[in-house]
Amino acid sequence: MSIPAPSIPKGTRDFSPVEMQRRNFIFDTIREVYTLYGYQPVETPAMENLSTLLGKYGDEGDKLLFKIVNSGDFLSAVGVTNMESLGSAELAPLICDRGLRYDLTVPFARFVVQHRNKIKFPFKRYQIQPVWRADRPQKGRYREFYQCDADVIGSNSLLNEYELLLIIKEVFSRLNVSNRILINNRKLLSGIAEVAGVGERITDITTEIDKIGKIGMNEVVKNLTAKGIPESSIAVIRPLLELTGSNSDKMERLSEILSNSATGMRGVEEMSELLGYLKEKESDGVIFDLSLARGLNYYTGAIIEVKAEDSDIGSICGGGRYDDLTGVFGLSDTSGVGISFGADRIYDVMLQNDLFPQAKLTGTSALVVNFGGDTTPYALGVVAALRRAGIRSELYPDSVRLKKQFSYANANKIPWIIVAGEDEMAAGKVKVKEMDSGSERDMTLNSFIDEYGASL
Amino acid sequence: MSIPAPSIPKGTRDFSPVEMQRRNFIFDTIREVYTLYGYQPVETPAMENLSTLLGKYGDEGDKLLFKIVNSGDFLSAVGVTNMESLGSAELAPLICDRGLRYDLTVPFARFVVQHRNKIKFPFKRYQIQPVWRADRPQKGRYREFYQCDADVIGSNSLLNEYELLLIIKEVFSRLNVSNRILINNRKLLSGIAEVAGVGERITDITTEIDKIGKIGMNEVVKNLTAKGIPESSIAVIRPLLELTGSNSDKMERLSEILSNSATGMRGVEEMSELLGYLKEKESDGVIFDLSLARGLNYYTGAIIEVKAEDSDIGSICGGGRYDDLTGVFGLSDTSGVGISFGADRIYDVMLQNDLFPQAKLTGTSALVVNFGGDTTPYALGVVAALRRAGIRSELYPDSVRLKKQFSYANANKIPWIIVAGEDEMAAGKVKVKEMDSGSERDMTLNSFIDEYGASL
Repeated sequence: MSIPAPSIPKGTRDFSPVEMQRRNFIFDTIREVYTLYGYQPVETPAMENLSTLLGKYGDEGDKLLFKIVNSGDFLSAVGVTNMESLGSAELAPLICDRGLRYDLTVPFARFVVQHRNKIKFPFKRYQIQPVWRADRPQKGRYREFYQCDADVIGSNSLLNEYELLLIIKEVFSRLNVSNRILINNRKLLSGIAEVAGVGERITDITTEIDKIGKIGMNEVVKNLTAKGIPESSIAVIRPLLELTGSNSDKMERLSEILSNSATGMRGVEEMSELLGYLKEKESDGVIFDLSLARGLNYYTGAIIEVKAEDSDIGSICGGGRYDDLTGVFGLSDTSGVGISFGADRIYDVMLQNDLFPQAKLTGTSALVVNFGGDTTPYALGVVAALRRAGIRSELYPDSVRLKKQFSYANANKIPWIIVAGEDEMAAGKVKVKEMDSGSERDMTLNSFIDEYGASL
Repeated sequence: MSIPAPSIPKGTRDFSPVEMQRRNFIFDTIREVYTLYGYQPVETPAMENLSTLLGKYGDEGDKLLFKIVNSGDFLSAVGVTNMESLGSAELAPLICDRGLRYDLTVPFARFVVQHRNKIKFPFKRYQIQPVWRADRPQKGRYREFYQCDADVIGSNSLLNEYELLLIIKEVFSRLNVSNRILINNRKLLSGIAEVAGVGERITDITTEIDKIGKIGMNEVVKNLTAKGIPESSIAVIRPLLELTGSNSDKMERLSEILSNSATGMRGVEEMSELLGYLKEKESDGVIFDLSLARGLNYYTGAIIEVKAEDSDIGSICGGGRYDDLTGVFGLSDTSGVGISFGADRIYDVMLQNDLFPQAKLTGTSALVVNFGGDTTPYALGVVAALRRAGIRSELYPDSVRLKKQFSYANANKIPWIIVAGEDEMAAGKVKVKEMDSGSERDMTLNSFIDEYGASL
């Protein structure tokens, strides 16, 4: 009987050692910068109660949740007469109490409310974990992918927004990814809708504004018209979205136009304060963009989005301030602000642009050749000494042909081969071969460690 | 309307920052040692096709798999007439194509077979990821928990077993966890069953032997009798399991008794070779224990189990050699050997015995007090300089009462408070306060960094 080749579910991925080394370089960088800025790690379970997740991501999001069927005799709770009349949509909530998390934001809000009595606010947490969405898989979109979130909750200070911008700059500087950071403020958008006389249509308007980058201003204007936004309102909104000039030019113009909107003027104040914190060099690449809306309606203040330069991959980080994320779980009046790095997209940008530093990928540094027989104790001593010096190393486990052992080093990109055979043993030395250059030298193991150890 | 307090599914856990710091200390230690020994990371998806998982863990295991209900109209595939007559057990496989992984071993076997053409053997991989089991939750047993596995596949050399023992010793030495490592060989157990005339009953026998530690030898003998193992066979088996003396004494006795069993004698050779690799100091705490069986029937050679001393928590690491793990996926004749650290149990042991080194837990090192107003740029400069020096630090985001800011530092165990108010700004200095001792000093920020930076 032939056994079918095994596979994994559509939209999921295995990660090979090389891919993992690259991914870990990204995760480690983000983690280091988060902790450098005082954010602390938390983790939540992969599965949440469905009641925690449902209704938080819109109707479409509810459909994209992965639901876990209850254990044991899950049908007993349904009732046979019921069964025949139920469709899948009605049956699912009766037989599934749990689902896989869809993002890290809702579980974090749940976490904060559940543990509010043990948490000291302001609470600065980061969380790097996978999320799952039953989306149709396509290029760059997966059903399992990692999010890397940092949020501070319980502080209204705009210093938090400022520091999150610094974190973004620091992470991408360490990763060597060229980028531009777009910032805006939801209160400015609300103010603009207000002075255009369509304040109550803010959700429709921001949803459309969000598409400017993709479909262009003309299409957006058509859509707004189709949605019943009056021409006179569009005539007020459009020129503001197209404002040019320096950040301070834009602010000046806005404070004139929004002077009659209290919300709008609060937006002006917030944006001025935030821009004021950015020292000259820090403001490089930070662009105040009034057309930045982001579809997420829970944002109430700052909005942040980062785009990769030299790439068509688009948004690689985003975030903003939300004033009532925990309200739905029973804790109101708790403002938060956060960002999320899209690790998978950053990976794609870095791969496209060849940005992974080979030296920082932590594969094995040295392979000790196995000649077997009497040389084994000597070779074991060599590999033990290398490890004591902190050098990641292996003794090839079998005493097979040298060609095979070299081919193993090659395939695994191991930069050094250490030969510790009979001649070397007799001389109390080793022969070291640098795979890149092909150069060979006889030396004591200690001189090798002294000379190269620090760089491995 | 009052909103019910949010909760998480039974048997799952949230991890707070302090718990995460401790857990990361364990994971980082294991990861560092694995890479030091040349093991490379891989990851597999949380969900596997159910066909990959079913039938691999016995009937009981099949029941404990978390199954994910298919997306969309999952009932359409079932048929209405069918529905009424189906029980939960029959319906589940019709509406669930995927399940959450139950361990890391089966996904790894699937990975090796699926990617066999891209893998260079021997393949040394490690994998640190959560697994899910719908077990009844109880103290120390969770429905989501982490496994930390290392396996080498495609090499028969016993040097692999030897190095895995060194890895175990190195990890627990770094974690400061007292332990004893029990080793045995499945071939010795098979040989014993053979010479006792009950070779075909090896599975029943090892299942019972596995219980000696829990229920004692007398109960095990009763069970063996109840299972129909003849008294004459038990009379051969029992004294062997109770062998005392040094490892070499045991080996000598065994090679006499097993001389007529080819399998048993291969076990003697393997065990002798492995014990021979262990240098004097390395064999400290490594105990050859013939009563170690482990219930897992896929082991065919070495068996390893590590128990924590000073604790009733029991097994904290285990492993062994298996000769045909990938056969079920269509790749036969591929021998592997591996170990798995139980991170959650190691955590419990370390907490019980107060083994977490405070200095290695990576919380924030310094809190800069926020006085607001004109001092903000000065304070921002201070926190920026601390971070440039690699010191994990925060500026308290709001300019609230000092008492509140100190209480935040206290709650988050931040060891240093840096005061950068008007007086300090005028003097170009900072006041540093060590929270533990309560001592305060005025100094330049650079002297603080020079004096304490390296230790933070």
